[in-house]
Amino acid sequence: MLAIDPLDWTIVQSSLHTARMHRITLSPRVRMTPFHASVVKAGVSDITVYNKMVLPTSYGDLQAEYDRLINGVAMWDVSVERQVEISGPDAHACTQYLTARDLSSMVEGQGKYVAICDHAGRILNDPVLMKLSGNRYWLSIADNDMLLWCKAIAAERGFDVVVTEPDVSPLAIQGPKAEDLLAELFGQHIRKLKYFWFEETELDGIPLVLCRSGWSKQGGFELFLQDGSRGNDLWEAVSSAGEKYAIGPGAPNHVERVESGLLSFGGDNTPDSNPFEVGMGRYVDTDTDVEYIGKAALVDVVASGGPERLFVGVEVGAELTEAWPLPERTPIMVGAEQVGTLSAIVHSHRLDRTIGLAQIKRTVVEANATVVVQTPSGPAAATITTLPFI
Amino acid sequence: MLAIDPLDWTIVQSSLHTARMHRITLSPRVRMTPFHASVVKAGVSDITVYNKMVLPTSYGDLQAEYDRLINGVAMWDVSVERQVEISGPDAHACTQYLTARDLSSMVEGQGKYVAICDHAGRILNDPVLMKLSGNRYWLSIADNDMLLWCKAIAAERGFDVVVTEPDVSPLAIQGPKAEDLLAELFGQHIRKLKYFWFEETELDGIPLVLCRSGWSKQGGFELFLQDGSRGNDLWEAVSSAGEKYAIGPGAPNHVERVESGLLSFGGDNTPDSNPFEVGMGRYVDTDTDVEYIGKAALVDVVASGGPERLFVGVEVGAELTEAWPLPERTPIMVGAEQVGTLSAIVHSHRLDRTIGLAQIKRTVVEANATVVVQTPSGPAAATITTLPFI
Repeated sequence: MLAIDPLDWTIVQSSLHTARMHRITLSPRVRMTPFHASVVKAGVSDITVYNKMVLPTSYGDLQAEYDRLINGVAMWDVSVERQVEISGPDAHACTQYLTARDLSSMVEGQGKYVAICDHAGRILNDPVLMKLSGNRYWLSIADNDMLLWCKAIAAERGFDVVVTEPDVSPLAIQGPKAEDLLAELFGQHIRKLKYFWFEETELDGIPLVLCRSGWSKQGGFELFLQDGSRGNDLWEAVSSAGEKYAIGPGAPNHVERVESGLLSFGGDNTPDSNPFEVGMGRYVDTDTDVEYIGKAALVDVVASGGPERLFVGVEVGAELTEAWPLPERTPIMVGAEQVGTLSAIVHSHRLDRTIGLAQIKRTVVEANATVVVQTPSGPAAATITTLPFI
Repeated sequence: MLAIDPLDWTIVQSSLHTARMHRITLSPRVRMTPFHASVVKAGVSDITVYNKMVLPTSYGDLQAEYDRLINGVAMWDVSVERQVEISGPDAHACTQYLTARDLSSMVEGQGKYVAICDHAGRILNDPVLMKLSGNRYWLSIADNDMLLWCKAIAAERGFDVVVTEPDVSPLAIQGPKAEDLLAELFGQHIRKLKYFWFEETELDGIPLVLCRSGWSKQGGFELFLQDGSRGNDLWEAVSSAGEKYAIGPGAPNHVERVESGLLSFGGDNTPDSNPFEVGMGRYVDTDTDVEYIGKAALVDVVASGGPERLFVGVEVGAELTEAWPLPERTPIMVGAEQVGTLSAIVHSHRLDRTIGLAQIKRTVVEANATVVVQTPSGPAAATITTLPFI
């Protein structure tokens, strides 16, 4: 009945095998993080590679890691969120030209979630942009080498800027108790920081930028370590102060991020996606006088009535015991037609339901069609939902 | 006695632990290759990530994999060598502008090893450049996202080209028996192909580019699969025909590449290296009329008497049983002074000796100084040698 090419499913099953079974070979080509010794001591069991750097993904107890994030406080080595620093007299002009969002009103100490696009309006990255001063910006990037892109654009366009990757490595403190812990360490005033706003500060002489941010919807902050030689000192300081909150190690949480509908750039989207197709429409300014790369193409998308695909949730009518990431995007079908791709499928602990993330044709979403997705137990019917789930 | 910061070694030991023990988490952000099902069936045990794609690194028997490469024939899934295709009326002009080598005399069917540099002359990649026609080139890239770099340069400079990543995935056939096997499959004429030269061909209707190339010094070819849906068919066809040569699976071989002095771009070099500092001086044209990115800086390096560092071998006075990659570059010392970085250290089976790869200050190399390197058993004295070892 279900029109799924059997070959696809064979490959997914091989992939699931790979995803669970294989050791990773490290070499100097893949960078360690400043927290590496602490992470090993904390019992890291699984890792991946992100921006050519090690990203810890689990400490061996996914359920405990989820519970800590939802109910307590967790610390994550997310050094892989590398910064691209754009500094110099033309820093604002260069950053604006790179960014599909009007930055005119942005002030020092403020961050914004932005899309970086190519000249055809395809999204290349979804960083948090931080304005450190009028002539110094950071792009806190997802997995795609924005240093190359920004350097090339700046040099060829003649902007008077220096584009570098500074010695900055974020440590995320996430969960409902993160604010209490960090207020103890940095002062009560940090409770008033707005989302994506930040301040330069220090802890035991360790230079930091403290930002209300992080890749979860459970609340929290990121400590942007500015001295790689002090990574283990910072880990130890936060870890000790966090004992009374039962802090423990964790990592960007696959189940929580699906529940919260957070985009995994490069994983959830096909490479030809525009920002409207990854749920970033409200962060893209097309009705503005500022010029930026890809603007003409994005204006066309709006003028033509909207994007071809949307980033949505799917509720799946099948039980799922697997909590591990789907290793490849798999086809989503309506009858014999492929109408989208599934990029994540998990059992939601809080909803007690199987849910997933997908890019699906806008016409299919608007028709509220029932679709067929692939699960580790085989094809299953699913309904399309808005994001987030919770 | 030895002036090595003890902290460094602690980190290396944590890293060695990580390098051997950890599972990799895969997700759609890291791409599978067209050979994935075959690779799993062949028993892949270790993998890494390269150009945001899975690179198999071992099938569980490193000694057998080495022997097969040195004495027989092996097949490697090196799909991670992605192609950046530059096509259109300005393809030659754009490719030349990107490349630190005079391409005037290059003809169709020819490949060249080239350096791609940034505007300050720092190397960004060491691809094999292939000229498919006067208006179509491929860069067969190492681990750094040249698609972003080339797209940015082409768009901002107004070259009339299209820059894409085509559906092309190399399968390397390496070892002294590779030529006999491929002559059977493709015809005796392939024995006459010069190094890096190639032809478009097919096998059982599978479209390919066959090139005399590969990341070993044992001889061999790469089959650039041009239809990702046929990956497992190609693997099976080569595997079956290769039975009489006892072909088996393998991967870019860490011991052989150290013996042969082959550069692992991004692993062996610090990010601020110029091409002269990674052993690519003879492929860089500074005395030429053609213009390319970084030329002024590279002319300056030559005019100032040469680079600050050289890419060299080290012979280490210590036994080593470990065959696995060093997970981080470690300091090389002369007394209390750091004079370079070690990026690989292995026990050479053929030399029965401990050897490594390093970037070391030119003055130290020219003085033929004895240096101190870090091994998994602790610091050891080493002498500097030219490359290759064999």
